Amino acid sequence: MPFAPLRNDTFLRACLRQATPYTPLWLMRQAGRYLPEYKATRARAGSFMGLATNTDYATEVTLQPLERYALDAAILFSDILTVPDAMGLGLSFAEGEGPKLAQPLRDEAAVAKLAVPDMDKLRYVFDAVGSIRRALDGRVPLIGFSGSPWTLACYMVEGGGSSDDWRRVKSLLYSRPDLMHRILAINAEAVAQYLNAQIAAGAQAVMVFDSWGGALADQAFQEFSLAYTARVLVKLQRTHDGQTIPRIVFTKGGGLWLDQMAALDCDVLGVDWTVNLGRARALVGASKALQGNLDPAVLFAPPEQVQAQARRVLDAFGTPHQGTGAGPTHIFNLGHGISQHTPPDHVQALVEAVHGHSRRLRAGAGSS
Amino acid sequence: MPFAPLRNDTFLRACLRQATPYTPLWLMRQAGRYLPEYKATRARAGSFMGLATNTDYATEVTLQPLERYALDAAILFSDILTVPDAMGLGLSFAEGEGPKLAQPLRDEAAVAKLAVPDMDKLRYVFDAVGSIRRALDGRVPLIGFSGSPWTLACYMVEGGGSSDDWRRVKSLLYSRPDLMHRILAINAEAVAQYLNAQIAAGAQAVMVFDSWGGALADQAFQEFSLAYTARVLVKLQRTHDGQTIPRIVFTKGGGLWLDQMAALDCDVLGVDWTVNLGRARALVGASKALQGNLDPAVLFAPPEQVQAQARRVLDAFGTPHQGTGAGPTHIFNLGHGISQHTPPDHVQALVEAVHGHSRRLRAGAGSS
Repeated sequence: MPFAPLRNDTFLRACLRQATPYTPLWLMRQAGRYLPEYKATRARAGSFMGLATNTDYATEVTLQPLERYALDAAILFSDILTVPDAMGLGLSFAEGEGPKLAQPLRDEAAVAKLAVPDMDKLRYVFDAVGSIRRALDGRVPLIGFSGSPWTLACYMVEGGGSSDDWRRVKSLLYSRPDLMHRILAINAEAVAQYLNAQIAAGAQAVMVFDSWGGALADQAFQEFSLAYTARVLVKLQRTHDGQTIPRIVFTKGGGLWLDQMAALDCDVLGVDWTVNLGRARALVGASKALQGNLDPAVLFAPPEQVQAQARRVLDAFGTPHQGTGAGPTHIFNLGHGISQHTPPDHVQALVEAVHGHSRRLRAGAGSS
Repeated sequence: MPFAPLRNDTFLRACLRQATPYTPLWLMRQAGRYLPEYKATRARAGSFMGLATNTDYATEVTLQPLERYALDAAILFSDILTVPDAMGLGLSFAEGEGPKLAQPLRDEAAVAKLAVPDMDKLRYVFDAVGSIRRALDGRVPLIGFSGSPWTLACYMVEGGGSSDDWRRVKSLLYSRPDLMHRILAINAEAVAQYLNAQIAAGAQAVMVFDSWGGALADQAFQEFSLAYTARVLVKLQRTHDGQTIPRIVFTKGGGLWLDQMAALDCDVLGVDWTVNLGRARALVGASKALQGNLDPAVLFAPPEQVQAQARRVLDAFGTPHQGTGAGPTHIFNLGHGISQHTPPDHVQALVEAVHGHSRRLRAGAGSS
């Protein structure tokens, strides 16, 4: 049975640099711990992986923020470490701690054994994609995602997050670049297969999260992160069921390399809050849409300040392209995931400000 | 009694954009835990603050890396939180944890009570500066330093380091910018007095560490960090005892704002490893020397890789200015403090590579 036709295509149009009546927005990690209803579902599921691996729970939490807010896209509820888990590295989440991988890549033998996982092991993710698409019933598009090859490698070598400046993965990178390249080549193939399977299951756009690309030195970023993101992109399905599938790349801390990222074969570049959107627009030119970039910490401030800062972000980008054809467009987002400490009503204020002010920007440009 | 004349002025000359026969180097946090002799002195002192507040110990550890390596500058051994401590915020270091401030700035009343501290409370720092100068006996110049107004404010509001994306200080910044500006104005005055007293005591160059400027959003950085660093700079003594005192500003994660930092009234801009030194040189032009920017993680790799990466950093900057007058110059450093996990003999390999390759670069440019 085909999915219901899409009723709000603002996000997809903006991704493809087409004119929209307002600036669409969604929030990284929008289904998350700042929502009491998320915490309730999480409690029923028993654990984070219990939530992510159960189709019904994953569907439920993906749709929760859409019940509260007029967001213009949904994003698959999952974790970026599903792929290393499917590779057999043994993912677990201890209560109150970050993710852990029981078998990190610590020596040449471990790297030699690494292989692209059977995508059947990730069936629960693709099932969730289909289930969410049905539940969305055409309300807004669904974004699928993966960590970038480099970002996955960070966790795979460290065995989890790093409180120590990614010492182990960078030691490997500088000491044994050959092993690092082998890990990254396998990750790139796995990520491409994973995203293509999400597209086949119903994802209407895909995003590569290069969360730790910004930890790399200039030259190392290009060699160990950007090159492998590029390798993923060339392998992605461009269309599905006659629809173009926009591809978004977000490198946290990657603002300095935006001109080099502009050469990627993707549609949208996500940027964090250190980037000036006006400068970024001038730099990347007409070839890419931009996504971002409110500091998530703004949402701790009272609603009036939230709205003022949201307007500053929209104004920094300026009035998007409004004619026919393709031109500069903006998708509003945070510069990183929303914090668990965010008051939910501040998000309501944000959504209203973005939609309202971005309509006024277009009207002002039209009448002047 | 005047201090001994300086025998190696390579670092000071490079700071003032004068030609040098090789690229000088020093390392942020060069007197530190990666050195067994530092750990031995630290054990005798009983605590970190016991080390920093004792003139003899501070002198001893400042000189330790110079006994091992042909470094071209010494940097005062101290902590950036001495100023908040003198303001009465109650600094302590728990074993195995970061710094803590017992009285963080958490409400309007606390901010209202904040004042520029009596510099007499920091006498131990100025005494250390004089003692180190005497012990150096003209071997290399001594760098004094302070945290930037913004970076001090981060710790003053959070009560220590942050594992939570500087949530408290950013909440204050966005909710009550008036309070934030009051803290920063006081910090700027305190930092200027502190650095001027270090200069009076014998510091031959001064550096402002804006370690957390890069956590700020575009626009917030300019308003809450850069503007107050600029305020410090205009208040600094330009000369002492007939010598020009170079001023270095380092914003970790500030590469995107380098063109705006180029307008600061200082001599040297420090950059982290995400910056391409060749691009930075083209961007800041002839107005500033550049300092940096090897990834400290490179030092975990074997000596040959350390040396190859050091050559890449030197090559990225290119051949410095070699004529008379002022022109583009480079001071080699890491892009952040050296890690406690660094093998000391890798530092030896680094120093040899920097001095050797930078001499060859100049010879090659001269003969071509």
